[in-house]
Amino acid sequence: MARVVTTIERAGPPIVDALALAGVATVHEAQGRTGLLASRLRPIYSGARIAGSAVTISAPPGDNWMIHVAIEQLQAGDILVLSPTSPCEDGYFGDLLATSAMARGCRGLVIDAGVRDVRDLTAMGFPVWSKAVFAQGTVKATLGSVNVPIVCAGAAIDPGDVIVADDDGVCVVKRADAAAVLARAQAREAAEEAKRARLAAGELGLDIYDMRGKLEAMGLRYE
Amino acid sequence: MARVVTTIERAGPPIVDALALAGVATVHEAQGRTGLLASRLRPIYSGARIAGSAVTISAPPGDNWMIHVAIEQLQAGDILVLSPTSPCEDGYFGDLLATSAMARGCRGLVIDAGVRDVRDLTAMGFPVWSKAVFAQGTVKATLGSVNVPIVCAGAAIDPGDVIVADDDGVCVVKRADAAAVLARAQAREAAEEAKRARLAAGELGLDIYDMRGKLEAMGLRYE
Amino acid sequence: MARVVTTIERAGPPIVDALALAGVATVHEAQGRTGLLASRLRPIYSGARIAGSAVTISAPPGDNWMIHVAIEQLQAGDILVLSPTSPCEDGYFGDLLATSAMARGCRGLVIDAGVRDVRDLTAMGFPVWSKAVFAQGTVKATLGSVNVPIVCAGAAIDPGDVIVADDDGVCVVKRADAAAVLARAQAREAAEEAKRARLAAGELGLDIYDMRGKLEAMGLRYE
Amino acid sequence: MARVVTTIERAGPPIVDALALAGVATVHEAQGRTGLLASRLRPIYSGARIAGSAVTISAPPGDNWMIHVAIEQLQAGDILVLSPTSPCEDGYFGDLLATSAMARGCRGLVIDAGVRDVRDLTAMGFPVWSKAVFAQGTVKATLGSVNVPIVCAGAAIDPGDVIVADDDGVCVVKRADAAAVLARAQAREAAEEAKRARLAAGELGLDIYDMRGKLEAMGLRYE
Amino acid sequence: MARVVTTIERAGPPIVDALALAGVATVHEAQGRTGLLASRLRPIYSGARIAGSAVTISAPPGDNWMIHVAIEQLQAGDILVLSPTSPCEDGYFGDLLATSAMARGCRGLVIDAGVRDVRDLTAMGFPVWSKAVFAQGTVKATLGSVNVPIVCAGAAIDPGDVIVADDDGVCVVKRADAAAVLARAQAREAAEEAKRARLAAGELGLDIYDMRGKLEAMGLRYE
Amino acid sequence: MARVVTTIERAGPPIVDALALAGVATVHEAQGRTGLLASRLRPIYSGARIAGSAVTISAPPGDNWMIHVAIEQLQAGDILVLSPTSPCEDGYFGDLLATSAMARGCRGLVIDAGVRDVRDLTAMGFPVWSKAVFAQGTVKATLGSVNVPIVCAGAAIDPGDVIVADDDGVCVVKRADAAAVLARAQAREAAEEAKRARLAAGELGLDIYDMRGKLEAMGLRYE
Repeated sequence: MARVVTTIERAGPPIVDALALAGVATVHEAQGRTGLLASRLRPIYSGARIAGSAVTISAPPGDNWMIHVAIEQLQAGDILVLSPTSPCEDGYFGDLLATSAMARGCRGLVIDAGVRDVRDLTAMGFPVWSKAVFAQGTVKATLGSVNVPIVCAGAAIDPGDVIVADDDGVCVVKRADAAAVLARAQAREAAEEAKRARLAAGELGLDIYDMRGKLEAMGLRYE
Repeated sequence: MARVVTTIERAGPPIVDALALAGVATVHEAQGRTGLLASRLRPIYSGARIAGSAVTISAPPGDNWMIHVAIEQLQAGDILVLSPTSPCEDGYFGDLLATSAMARGCRGLVIDAGVRDVRDLTAMGFPVWSKAVFAQGTVKATLGSVNVPIVCAGAAIDPGDVIVADDDGVCVVKRADAAAVLARAQAREAAEEAKRARLAAGELGLDIYDMRGKLEAMGLRYE
Repeated sequence: MARVVTTIERAGPPIVDALALAGVATVHEAQGRTGLLASRLRPIYSGARIAGSAVTISAPPGDNWMIHVAIEQLQAGDILVLSPTSPCEDGYFGDLLATSAMARGCRGLVIDAGVRDVRDLTAMGFPVWSKAVFAQGTVKATLGSVNVPIVCAGAAIDPGDVIVADDDGVCVVKRADAAAVLARAQAREAAEEAKRARLAAGELGLDIYDMRGKLEAMGLRYE
Repeated sequence: MARVVTTIERAGPPIVDALALAGVATVHEAQGRTGLLASRLRPIYSGARIAGSAVTISAPPGDNWMIHVAIEQLQAGDILVLSPTSPCEDGYFGDLLATSAMARGCRGLVIDAGVRDVRDLTAMGFPVWSKAVFAQGTVKATLGSVNVPIVCAGAAIDPGDVIVADDDGVCVVKRADAAAVLARAQAREAAEEAKRARLAAGELGLDIYDMRGKLEAMGLRYE
Repeated sequence: MARVVTTIERAGPPIVDALALAGVATVHEAQGRTGLLASRLRPIYSGARIAGSAVTISAPPGDNWMIHVAIEQLQAGDILVLSPTSPCEDGYFGDLLATSAMARGCRGLVIDAGVRDVRDLTAMGFPVWSKAVFAQGTVKATLGSVNVPIVCAGAAIDPGDVIVADDDGVCVVKRADAAAVLARAQAREAAEEAKRARLAAGELGLDIYDMRGKLEAMGLRYE
Repeated sequence: MARVVTTIERAGPPIVDALALAGVATVHEAQGRTGLLASRLRPIYSGARIAGSAVTISAPPGDNWMIHVAIEQLQAGDILVLSPTSPCEDGYFGDLLATSAMARGCRGLVIDAGVRDVRDLTAMGFPVWSKAVFAQGTVKATLGSVNVPIVCAGAAIDPGDVIVADDDGVCVVKRADAAAVLARAQAREAAEEAKRARLAAGELGLDIYDMRGKLEAMGLRYE
């Protein structure tokens, strides 16, 4: 059942790049509070904000063979997304694989397992969101699959879906929804801008959002 | 039972500010090794060291409505302290709420749940100690309470208690004890200064604290 | 049974220092993927990369008395390694103990428990790998042992073993194996250098490592 | 976006019932080692072994309103499967809801959250696999969805998929694959029966599975 | 600061005993969904359902000396409640201490740490709710306090408060509220009885609780 | 480096069997509060109390090949002890392997990973102490070692060491110390018997152990 899907569809680059600018929290809200990966995935360094098309990897625990296979499938603008078939925190990925992935235009890695060589990866500017930093090495003995549907850190991801990642974590946007989600995200950002100015001026959310009546009706008591 | 207490007592600002200078570890020792919140609360960025009066929030899981209510109760020098009524890591708080809280003089947030927009919060210089960084959005559907006694990350906190937070974590000082704790903290710091110099010069704690006799009496054997 | 072994053997300083340069991931691979401490040990700040001889401490939960005893046993180039006798995250170690340890030439601390004063330790340049940052104070009431064999974060460590620690975590090298491990680590680094250049040029690991035939033989299917 | 799908397809009852007999471990192997839910889901009592068609629930944290909605969608032989939209361990379900679900022929509950009244549920013979036992009550304030695709404890589940659950945990079988998986499961059981007898007689797996040559070829050394 | 309060007030025995009958989930609901201890506290055996007056213990990590002190303070109908001053899972309590506590009429132990000799405790019928089962022994070297206010597993508990514990976990009822909470718990039980019969007969919660209109108004869509 | 040591020394059967009778808590105390495996290892059913000689297994994550190799090394009275080379909770072991192990006189399994077929194992009376119950299958692709020193759940174990396991967890006794530990364990049991009678009669530990003077001297204050 091990297989590699060599042709996947991707969202348009301008849409992908605009989703990166919107960021994880806004994109997540814009698609109805869905699509977040679990909070155990943390960036290895602060400040990266990326989006890209998912090249997915389903790999056995402690076996990184399929990453080599996946790298051949990368196009510029892609993000590797790896989910182990059972919980594992081994260091599947380090600076050599990052060198190879970057050579193919890969923007980063999302992995529900471990990563190592994080000092080198930081110096190279190759961002990773992982469950653990762990030097534990892996083997190349058992097959997995590339570009198949996976569940990664609690989120269902199809190859070609858009991955957005920043300091708040990682979010997936279904490829077919990317344009619509982007439109809602940008509308949301515009609306927030106006609110931000009012809040900065000292106005209260209670008044801006007109909450006082509803709070009273529900029985909130001031003492 | 949802209620907002609008009048709380606070410790004097000079005492609060001096407790910030003393820092969490010293304050914790000065009050007899009590008052620490659980170590799961971590700062979203390094280097912040604050103290302030607690404005407490008891909120349902995944519902941040009461933060809007609490912000109205803030005075300059306060710290928001939120405990969910059951374990939750949703992102209750982001840059808009921080903008609003800062406009009222709030010094930071302590939350036994999640926070988001951490890149913006860092840029704004609004420090947060949280259990998780998680973009997961919340609703505004169920009431909670503001300025009631809470247990947050294992510590009992009353509104108006002094919260001290830095890279070592978070500590609570009962409002009525603040002056006495400060005095002991400052005495402790002075005593440590002298010891630091002796230790830096190579003297051993075994000798400075006169431990050798007791260790021998208890049976420690050198081989 | 509490005891302090005052004479331990150490690996030669040039070997130790060269192991630091090789780093945790390479050293771990060079000794057959063994020797890693659990990933729960994380550095309190990024960028430190050290190696040194282990001065081991077995200490009761919440009792740091033995650290004072251990500091007297330190020689320049040593690393303190503390394992509590049962799981504990209390802050056994802070800036005063670091001052004392540094005065004796200690290079850092590895502790399967908590540490505090991390802002000061960072400013002092004293690196620590710990399970937690927690200001919780400890007592000096019960004996432990110094320079006895311990298990720390899942790895068996004898006094005098070489500890290597960097952003990827912590690894132990048995003292008697240090020279051989170093040789293999350096050979590995040399081999990686050539591969890195080829991967950076866009060559694939599939080809460099000649994997295609084996993958096909095992049944990997391209679609 | 809150919705209830009222018409779902289910696998045939004889297939479902036969999958229950095969049990979780065998079914999981029969479909290529896929489909397991995370091990944090544990049965509230030992000995239950069930299979049924999934009626899925996506519910907000701490809000069990949608369970009432889902119960109306139950048919005899179904299993309720609930995933909260963010991690939560509140007690969504107790003896009253179980009474209602049983009245509609429901065979059990799989929930990546908490359950309560476990003494009553045990006495009633209503099995539950949950992440926690926790009496924490929930509200009925926010909508969710019923019979939509969900990810529960790391596994993607569509409404109508077959859920198999026993003391080893929980496994999902895609509805369309149920017959084929059952055939492989039964073949596997038959094959195991013969092996069991040989192993019980003292024959070794090394010989039955003819492993010695391969182990030697790979370099296993006997000393 | 170590102290033992020798005189505490307790709720009336009939009220305490009636709260045990109501059970944790009902009592928790009857007092407004408050008072639960964290779900990490689990019973060492199934089926116990008790209530009693709290004799509280604040103890250092890995030190059970204060349990001996607390046992002298026990009266018939009391429950020991121990919270360590920092997280610990050592086995503070075993069959000898249980023998002593039972001789004084103690009904059980609630401990946010470990327990051992669970086979003996089960045979003796002495119920314990604990964070861990762990044989790790403790010392008697450092003082703590008895019958002082504590926070145990996230709940604030005063000596003399009523503890209710069963298979669902542990709940605390403030002593002064015990009678009122009992009244509400019994009213709730009566109301549930009628609902249980209707649900068992196949009526739906959607109808019994009249939810359909509100769900439609909030936008739930049936497809 | 993969190897199988075919000749190991074992402690005498009468000593081993007597250690089983003493149980984990007593044995742990008798050897100076050392030797416990981490509390995450729990029995799959209650009531088993065994001791045996360790046949150790170091296995890759998700690969149970070496268990087949180890079974050939079993003698009557042995216990299999498996530690994965990195954290893993896969189900390495089920009813077929148990059938094979029992045929060779194996008394049980201690595994810092997962186990499956627990209903069958319970029915067969084959006790297991594991980190998880998880049906996740494993492969047979990578070598490990048998009868080499391992660290399992935090304890260093050599082949032939005595493993004691019961409802309190698992303890290791170094083979060479087994007779001496047994003697101390039996002395301890005898001493406890007398104390148990006095405690059951209502005498206090404070008096039996003569603690009052020391408590007062250390400053314990009765109020």
